[in-house]
Amino acid sequence: MAEFTTVGRPIPKLDAVDKVTGRHRYPLDAVLPGMLWGKVLRSPYPHARIRRIDTSGAEAMPGVMAVLTWRDLPRKRVGNVIKDQEVLASDVVRYVGDAVAAVAAVDEGVAEAACRAIEVEYEELPAVFEVDEALAPGAPVVHEDLAGYEIRGVTTSATIPFLRPQGGTNICHHFKLRHGDVARGFRESDHVVEDEFSFQMIHHAPLEPHSSLAQVLPSGEVTVWSSVQNVHRIRQWLAEYFDMAQSAVRVIALKLGGGFGGKITLTLEPIVVGLARKAGQPVKIVMTRSETFIATGGRRPGRMTIKTGVSHDGRLLARQVTILWNGGAVSESGPISASLTALIASGPYRIPNVHVDSYLLYTNRVGPRAFRGLGAPQVFWGTESHMDVVARKLGVDPLEFRLRNALEEGDRAPWGERLHGVTLKECLQRAAAEIGWFDRTPGENVGRGLASIWKWTVPGTLSQALVKVHEDGTVAVMTGIADVGTGSATAMAQIAAEELGADVRQVSVVVGDTELTPYDYGSTSSRSTVHGGNAVKEAAQSARRQILERAAAELGLAAERLELRQGQVWRPDRPEEGIPVGRFLQGYVLGFGSFHGGGQGLFDPETGASPRAAHEWKYGATGAMVEVDRETGRVRVKRLASVHDIGFAINPLSVETQIEGAVVMGIGATFLEEVVFDGGQIVNPNFMDYLLPTATDVPDEIAPVVIESRKGDGPYGAKGIGEPPIVGVSPAVANAIDDVVGARIRDLPITPERLARALNPIPERRTA
Amino acid sequence: MAEFTTVGRPIPKLDAVDKVTGRHRYPLDAVLPGMLWGKVLRSPYPHARIRRIDTSGAEAMPGVMAVLTWRDLPRKRVGNVIKDQEVLASDVVRYVGDAVAAVAAVDEGVAEAACRAIEVEYEELPAVFEVDEALAPGAPVVHEDLAGYEIRGVTTSATIPFLRPQGGTNICHHFKLRHGDVARGFRESDHVVEDEFSFQMIHHAPLEPHSSLAQVLPSGEVTVWSSVQNVHRIRQWLAEYFDMAQSAVRVIALKLGGGFGGKITLTLEPIVVGLARKAGQPVKIVMTRSETFIATGGRRPGRMTIKTGVSHDGRLLARQVTILWNGGAVSESGPISASLTALIASGPYRIPNVHVDSYLLYTNRVGPRAFRGLGAPQVFWGTESHMDVVARKLGVDPLEFRLRNALEEGDRAPWGERLHGVTLKECLQRAAAEIGWFDRTPGENVGRGLASIWKWTVPGTLSQALVKVHEDGTVAVMTGIADVGTGSATAMAQIAAEELGADVRQVSVVVGDTELTPYDYGSTSSRSTVHGGNAVKEAAQSARRQILERAAAELGLAAERLELRQGQVWRPDRPEEGIPVGRFLQGYVLGFGSFHGGGQGLFDPETGASPRAAHEWKYGATGAMVEVDRETGRVRVKRLASVHDIGFAINPLSVETQIEGAVVMGIGATFLEEVVFDGGQIVNPNFMDYLLPTATDVPDEIAPVVIESRKGDGPYGAKGIGEPPIVGVSPAVANAIDDVVGARIRDLPITPERLARALNPIPERRTA
Repeated sequence: MAEFTTVGRPIPKLDAVDKVTGRHRYPLDAVLPGMLWGKVLRSPYPHARIRRIDTSGAEAMPGVMAVLTWRDLPRKRVGNVIKDQEVLASDVVRYVGDAVAAVAAVDEGVAEAACRAIEVEYEELPAVFEVDEALAPGAPVVHEDLAGYEIRGVTTSATIPFLRPQGGTNICHHFKLRHGDVARGFRESDHVVEDEFSFQMIHHAPLEPHSSLAQVLPSGEVTVWSSVQNVHRIRQWLAEYFDMAQSAVRVIALKLGGGFGGKITLTLEPIVVGLARKAGQPVKIVMTRSETFIATGGRRPGRMTIKTGVSHDGRLLARQVTILWNGGAVSESGPISASLTALIASGPYRIPNVHVDSYLLYTNRVGPRAFRGLGAPQVFWGTESHMDVVARKLGVDPLEFRLRNALEEGDRAPWGERLHGVTLKECLQRAAAEIGWFDRTPGENVGRGLASIWKWTVPGTLSQALVKVHEDGTVAVMTGIADVGTGSATAMAQIAAEELGADVRQVSVVVGDTELTPYDYGSTSSRSTVHGGNAVKEAAQSARRQILERAAAELGLAAERLELRQGQVWRPDRPEEGIPVGRFLQGYVLGFGSFHGGGQGLFDPETGASPRAAHEWKYGATGAMVEVDRETGRVRVKRLASVHDIGFAINPLSVETQIEGAVVMGIGATFLEEVVFDGGQIVNPNFMDYLLPTATDVPDEIAPVVIESRKGDGPYGAKGIGEPPIVGVSPAVANAIDDVVGARIRDLPITPERLARALNPIPERRTA
Repeated sequence: MAEFTTVGRPIPKLDAVDKVTGRHRYPLDAVLPGMLWGKVLRSPYPHARIRRIDTSGAEAMPGVMAVLTWRDLPRKRVGNVIKDQEVLASDVVRYVGDAVAAVAAVDEGVAEAACRAIEVEYEELPAVFEVDEALAPGAPVVHEDLAGYEIRGVTTSATIPFLRPQGGTNICHHFKLRHGDVARGFRESDHVVEDEFSFQMIHHAPLEPHSSLAQVLPSGEVTVWSSVQNVHRIRQWLAEYFDMAQSAVRVIALKLGGGFGGKITLTLEPIVVGLARKAGQPVKIVMTRSETFIATGGRRPGRMTIKTGVSHDGRLLARQVTILWNGGAVSESGPISASLTALIASGPYRIPNVHVDSYLLYTNRVGPRAFRGLGAPQVFWGTESHMDVVARKLGVDPLEFRLRNALEEGDRAPWGERLHGVTLKECLQRAAAEIGWFDRTPGENVGRGLASIWKWTVPGTLSQALVKVHEDGTVAVMTGIADVGTGSATAMAQIAAEELGADVRQVSVVVGDTELTPYDYGSTSSRSTVHGGNAVKEAAQSARRQILERAAAELGLAAERLELRQGQVWRPDRPEEGIPVGRFLQGYVLGFGSFHGGGQGLFDPETGASPRAAHEWKYGATGAMVEVDRETGRVRVKRLASVHDIGFAINPLSVETQIEGAVVMGIGATFLEEVVFDGGQIVNPNFMDYLLPTATDVPDEIAPVVIESRKGDGPYGAKGIGEPPIVGVSPAVANAIDDVVGARIRDLPITPERLARALNPIPERRTA
């Protein structure tokens, strides 16, 4: 008999048919009677002082119901960690796209016309755009009052002592990791290799753009339908901003149309609430596609240098990394990303001496946001490309080089944490096997590349869940997880079904509504299935226990002798005849479950030391096989193997689609996607000019490979899978390219032009 | 220091200001985009066979989106206990107002016109209206297939074995209570007194009429906003009717505008769901005032005979009661009411020989519904009037007569249940004192009357609750109780505040939404504060414990040494400095509580014996002082004392207003209100012709008196108060009238005409 009945099976997403037939309602689809449409007026300047805002013309327009400026809002800033963003700018705009005013009107056209009718007088200020400019002495300062800004933790309301924005500069955060003596390490090395890499901004590009609809009841209570990944934190921030009780604010997301980290930040919500309050009617704003680019940016770009000391026999002895993150004008999750990526910047290897500096810098561009991997893919672009550079220098096989240095079970990380469930070597070997690493034919025109994968899950976060078993045997799961499209709701249904002996089709899942669903930190950091799943499992077990105890009392049998299956209770003496649970229930039983992931995310400010920096660490490896057209620079990815120790695959089908989706996203980031800036202005903020991967761009074969170590902290030993598959794509591909054509690309994206130029250097031509 | 900080205090209802300023939104106010208006076509005949329904004319009308008949609905009947009502009649209509078809249209006017355009061909059938007609041999039978009707329990889904509808007759239910040997009891009595009483139908008259709005999502999931007192049972019935999973049906009532028992039955819900399905748009129906009369009826009318044997020294020796309930064509809660009122029909007295027959009879009138007291006020009208008749016959003081026979602590009821918390004597003495029973002045023109009060709470029902304490210290209580206007939500807030050391204004209460709030049997049977309150108390205690345990772990102190007050945790060593709970929480803590009231409601079919027929029994007494205008028959109630052992008053102000409201309702039932039938037709279905008590009709003084025995099964020893105050009003007033003018009225209402006729009999005049 199989160990499990429902988990571990490849069940199609329960909402798949609704979604492909257009029956699914996204947050975007929410409408209310009497609803107005809102529009936001945004700054055309990267840095300017606002001299005057005249809204009288807009207010006089027929159909305009409210015009909102900073005067209508609390005198506060918002922000995920550092409160550095005004909802509507009062004094200074800091990026092209910074919100200045907003209008609610009877339709979108009137709202847009009214926005145009608002007169704003700006005085342009000098601006900084690139990390070097930001660090240059005498550079314009993006946030003059930085030292006075409030800082609030992301996982608790405690302040984060290791965060120290440096007032009077553009240094938002400087994270230091110090382990061993890196100077001595380099002295003792046989070879020292220095390298530099850069990574571009890519856009989240969820098919559902950011949208928000607010209703303010006469009692003052606020309900917001918003396309967000973390309803409870959005509620907390919204309540804090408007100085309301959290219980008077409801945020509803349900199942959204993509997030990828770009929807975990207060964005349109305070604007629609402000407009709805002023207009006395519900107000909805849906961002245009261009607006999602200029107002929400994308993945955090930057540059990093890596210097590695290695012994002649290929042992890593020292590594120094400096990362300069271009944080734009809004830090958002930047301080957390800059800190946690510093931890992994030296790679998942045993290195006795490590020295990392990670700088988050303010510039006058749209603030980047959390993005699948929270910086790990960018840093691993450098670190794992560099591993091959070093291996090549040493003449060591890159796989062998990695295996020789790879972390093992029980090792300590450079910040002092003892690591468990370390299956990196197994993943690397498997990835290598998947791309024929050991079967190379001499002279073949195919390149092979590998990359290690290492990814944390955010520490110290909470998930809670409720499971109802109704008297008709149907089950409802309530979880604060917002299903962003990953299938986490289906996984929750499977877990509940498994524990309750139910058919998964009898399980409905309610997600992402602060009033309906228990607390959840949100769908971020590959935590949904682990944290939410543990909570659902405990809740389902509680419901099961309650049913069997009631049945036991009524039947006069011991509860442990009874079984629950298919909405029926089975007694051992009558194995052919189940008793419907309705006989023992009134309405339903309610089970509650709670899971608090360990770790604290607090670090020694001078060394980065932390006993447990993450809830858990995930290991994997990417292997790429490529062909390169030397003339055009076009790369064909023949096979991409994405190997992950996910502990246990609750739903192997969803795991595969998660891996495939992340790999394709990684392919986009590697070859195609780039938010292109001209100074402070994005020049390609639309899906015509911004290149997303299409069917012709994806690898010929994607091989998702799952290792089930059962060592995860999630239900049945599961680990998360949302982010890891994107982490290794770019370096594995770049390593494969170098493998076949001997060209090392250090700047993303690897466009055909860039690669062709590297392969066929054009002699400089003198102009006449 | 006071024992309690929040409970026991007279706190105004938390929603009072919203309600008096019109900001409160009732279920009636729900609107949805694209919403259609529905109307129901009802039978004009009391009993007729439907020959033909032609909807083609209606369907062709512009603006008509759906026309619904029985063909569009499941071939099932609905009903609280006995499934004896078709949602839309397929074959036979059984009362004037029976629903035949329904229309959804773009507005109410079109829907109404379309209803008129539906052609229905009826064949009239002979009908029965009064209980004697229903019992007469050869009477037309209201439900020909009665024997085959499905029966479902109200508190569990088990069938009710003691219910035996008698197929081929109009006897829906016959409940027998047999205790001792009543024939011998009468033989051994010194006096035997026989009496007969009747009671009219009165209307519930909630200010918010019945309304229902249904939305059917493309996925098939159904949401219904409905003005109902018991969202979870409505959901259960709706899901059963449409053969849907309970988890796919959501019922939302929140806080409604009055119920009084008239909103606990599936009414408009299946019609709006059927229309919304067919039309593909949300559909709302709001009953007109006339419709609430003809479609939902009112309090169950009937007639009863009482025969009492008593010893010369005033000891009750035997009592035989026969009650004939006019159950109309729909039994609704009738079987339960007919059964439980049989238990109390002999009064709260020690009587060795009791014989009660309670018949629920079908007639061709609108089916009455549960109504505050579920039949107890009607039966006590007879029983407690009769007590004075007997006392007068014996020449014994009516108070003394009652005290001599009153039940005492530990007595067994006639059905065998051991009774606890019996404080009847204390209540009677207090009521007597309140109306100057012991201070009579000879010759004064004031009458005084007393009545005992005895009321059960429905056995075996469940309440569950969730309490959230947010990181900002605010509290949210989630309870399935629907606040019908009684203030139960405020009581829940007080209980949560008490247990959490919070300010009651920091507590919000979410009520009556199957998706949001845990299971609750509903706001009926005076159970809300007892059952719901116990669940909330346990949930709050759980939340408190969780907070203190987390704080203890973090502070390194024992949890029991910490205190929770005002959203802060207080440690013993720093009594001046509270630590905000936010320091220990993420999002919120969630506490769960559950309370299952005891009792089974199962009876021996031959004797009515039951070990525990109710969850708990409530005792009280009414005292009335009246003046009577002998010429006009007008009665002025100078003082009405309503004395109740409520155990503990969670909110003394709400308790007073509950008592006052019930007393005024009792005054209406005593003097003014009557749904007048002409055969099967109601002749006064509106608030012009149906007389509700106004400010000039209420007693000069209402004296609510609360005895706090702390013996209740609810939180802090509380008992329920919703129903008891109405139980004794009519007999106490009638006894007072008889006391002062020597006229015994045996038929309700005591109109001036009726009383004047009793006082001044008009000699029969011969017509020429």
